[in-house]
Amino acid sequence: MLHQRALRHLKVTVLCLVLTVVVLRGTIGAGKFGTPEQDLDEIRQHFQTSRKRAEPHRVLEEIQTGGGGGGGDSGDGGGAGSNNYETFDINKIFVDEGEEEKPDPNKPYTLGPKISDWDEQRSDWLAKNPSFPNFIGPNKPRVLLVTGSAPKPCENPVGDHYLLKSIKNKIDYCRLHGIEIFYNMALLDAEMAGFWAKLPLIRKLLLSHPEIEFLWWMDSDAMFTDMAFELPWERYKDYNLVMHGWNEMVYDDKNWIGLNTGSFLLRNNQWALDLLHTWAPMGPKGKIREEAGKVLTRELKGRPVFEADDQSAMVYLLATQRDTWGNKVYLENGYYLHGYWGILVDRYEEMIENYHPGLGDHRWPLVTHFVGCKPCGKFGDYPVERCLKQMDRAFNFGDNQILQIYGFTHKSLASRKVKRVRNETSNPLEMKDELGLLHPAFKAVKVQQTNQA
Amino acid sequence: MLHQRALRHLKVTVLCLVLTVVVLRGTIGAGKFGTPEQDLDEIRQHFQTSRKRAEPHRVLEEIQTGGGGGGGDSGDGGGAGSNNYETFDINKIFVDEGEEEKPDPNKPYTLGPKISDWDEQRSDWLAKNPSFPNFIGPNKPRVLLVTGSAPKPCENPVGDHYLLKSIKNKIDYCRLHGIEIFYNMALLDAEMAGFWAKLPLIRKLLLSHPEIEFLWWMDSDAMFTDMAFELPWERYKDYNLVMHGWNEMVYDDKNWIGLNTGSFLLRNNQWALDLLHTWAPMGPKGKIREEAGKVLTRELKGRPVFEADDQSAMVYLLATQRDTWGNKVYLENGYYLHGYWGILVDRYEEMIENYHPGLGDHRWPLVTHFVGCKPCGKFGDYPVERCLKQMDRAFNFGDNQILQIYGFTHKSLASRKVKRVRNETSNPLEMKDELGLLHPAFKAVKVQQTNQA
Repeated sequence: MLHQRALRHLKVTVLCLVLTVVVLRGTIGAGKFGTPEQDLDEIRQHFQTSRKRAEPHRVLEEIQTGGGGGGGDSGDGGGAGSNNYETFDINKIFVDEGEEEKPDPNKPYTLGPKISDWDEQRSDWLAKNPSFPNFIGPNKPRVLLVTGSAPKPCENPVGDHYLLKSIKNKIDYCRLHGIEIFYNMALLDAEMAGFWAKLPLIRKLLLSHPEIEFLWWMDSDAMFTDMAFELPWERYKDYNLVMHGWNEMVYDDKNWIGLNTGSFLLRNNQWALDLLHTWAPMGPKGKIREEAGKVLTRELKGRPVFEADDQSAMVYLLATQRDTWGNKVYLENGYYLHGYWGILVDRYEEMIENYHPGLGDHRWPLVTHFVGCKPCGKFGDYPVERCLKQMDRAFNFGDNQILQIYGFTHKSLASRKVKRVRNETSNPLEMKDELGLLHPAFKAVKVQQTNQA
Repeated sequence: MLHQRALRHLKVTVLCLVLTVVVLRGTIGAGKFGTPEQDLDEIRQHFQTSRKRAEPHRVLEEIQTGGGGGGGDSGDGGGAGSNNYETFDINKIFVDEGEEEKPDPNKPYTLGPKISDWDEQRSDWLAKNPSFPNFIGPNKPRVLLVTGSAPKPCENPVGDHYLLKSIKNKIDYCRLHGIEIFYNMALLDAEMAGFWAKLPLIRKLLLSHPEIEFLWWMDSDAMFTDMAFELPWERYKDYNLVMHGWNEMVYDDKNWIGLNTGSFLLRNNQWALDLLHTWAPMGPKGKIREEAGKVLTRELKGRPVFEADDQSAMVYLLATQRDTWGNKVYLENGYYLHGYWGILVDRYEEMIENYHPGLGDHRWPLVTHFVGCKPCGKFGDYPVERCLKQMDRAFNFGDNQILQIYGFTHKSLASRKVKRVRNETSNPLEMKDELGLLHPAFKAVKVQQTNQA
């Protein structure tokens, strides 16, 4: 067993070494980098099981958002004085601000300066700031839901409309459950663009907000479809990372979809900082991300060929470093913290017929996640009509649970129109709201004075 | 004085009588309606100063959202199996659900059944539900910010992108200030479409949520540009309605822009219900709204010709019924609860140079409101480029105040790109956030057990 593990570690190390050498020597030439032993050291520091980290402190360079066109005033989109939006070209009004600085290829990527006493810093702060407790009720941690999208308009015209409906959906769930929202539209680190952008953001938010006990990352293409389901916080009291997934698929099969990073909980502590640091190295765009992608496709089961993504990297990290991280990671499959839309959306009518909100699982999924639909881009992995139609159904399915509080419902899951299902009354407070969402128990929180750090 | 007032009342009554008779006899014929005396009675009940209301209880009919196209599957937008969003026609996937029922022309419009004991109902409920107090801190009322947009995609491609940025902007302000958000996308009452849609919505939310002390309505085209400004709640303790405006312009001049209903506070009490009831009658779409529009254009100063809008109706209501409502209405002009964009957006750089957030007024406006821009529609009142460019600048102006908390800022007010302005540190909690927005005092609230109903 030990022998096998040692071999596995060595294999990982060698792979990473090859990776780095290929990338760096391709860009800067062999002379500047030093000996293979030094290369190996750098790589080992990132992936070794004792979680020691590389030291270099690097100020993040100016970054690009990945968009923003050119040009100054006016343009042919609609004329200088035109009031007509239809023919206007949005990209004509943005100014391209300066050149972006290229990251220094000599320095390995880092999310930020080393912090090894975050638990102490945080508990000190909480003790000094009782008005910002990390628990807002018994068994009720303070949670920040983090989501976002790119700062530029979607390439396809209806994409922004779905982003809008998606954030409304999240606003509704979070209002009912006493959760705050951070909607990000800024790229904090140009190297970590795309799906990796969440890592610098998450780290920044955890360190800025010690009062947050759990950060809940949620993709913009994921929607709440069970407004009544409260997360079982008690279940996670000994865990730091909760993702939807299956132990066997991750640890035994190394299946690239054995877990999902589109909706997950991360506790605010040192362990999380260490995890982010270990997770990040496959992210920097360009050759690192491309080469890492090849490693992941080779090492993980079922993974297509494409650049490294954060989810595959997480599977790989857990599968190869189970001893380091596994005991604090909860792979949840008792309810749909993430629910793949393909197996859910055709069953909504059946769910309405047979079940009720509050279950969170296959009977009434907490989250329906439209992986692969990519409504903001030009092309998705599925037919456009199927995606948009189902996204509207999912939205309406969730929205109905909000509307019923007020006596309304959508005319059908396909319809934007709503209809009244309960008459107005002159005694509105005697009305019983069936789902108990009007003044939900999980919202009736009292502020605790003692922090449970 | 009394003589003049009596004459004014009579004039109002006669005008309304003429209005109703014209409308009703035009639609249903003279025979069904009865005598002029009965007509006069109905009208008088709506506009009389003692606030007695018309009795009929009418169940709201099924409503339309004002959009939603036709067709079932597929269509020529992109082919049945196409993954290409660019050529896809969104309207092909929606089903037109049933016919809408027409409102009964015999019955005057009403927002709902008469309630005259709402203060008692509400205080009883608050006493029984100490976990949902209406004050969440000393001098800190529970506030619900209400906004929204139509359920269908914007006619112009970038409109939804601006709605998205606008709601992110509101999420940021409200998170800092402990305010909850309700984003509405449902048309609750087909007759009160467009700008009047807020009335049934506001009434519904007040009656459903007795724990709300103030409802803050805010248009989707209004943005927060001072993230540090907390509303002076104490100033309003004896008032029920707060709007930006000027007494002289409303009461003396009857100027149609003497106040603004794009951003206002309404306290949750009987007075508010009575106000909504009195405000509503000019709203029902069709002939009533058109004819009411003519009255308003004639009676108010500077008003263009168009159907009755809620803002003009409010000016008219206050100017003609000052004795009834005036003592509980605060026309605020000490800061920009609503700030007309035209006189603000070109000064942002000057503001940054000379002032700082937290002022809320002409030096650093709380709200920049893009009246007339209409980015969701096809045509606005101003050139498209001017509107969109300035909306981006306003968004960035506000967003910079959020980003600076985390050590970033936009490269310029015109740029989507952000740049770092503060290095990462291994002691993030020792960092002083200049604006005090990281853990703002107005957020450090304790839950009070006693309700101040």
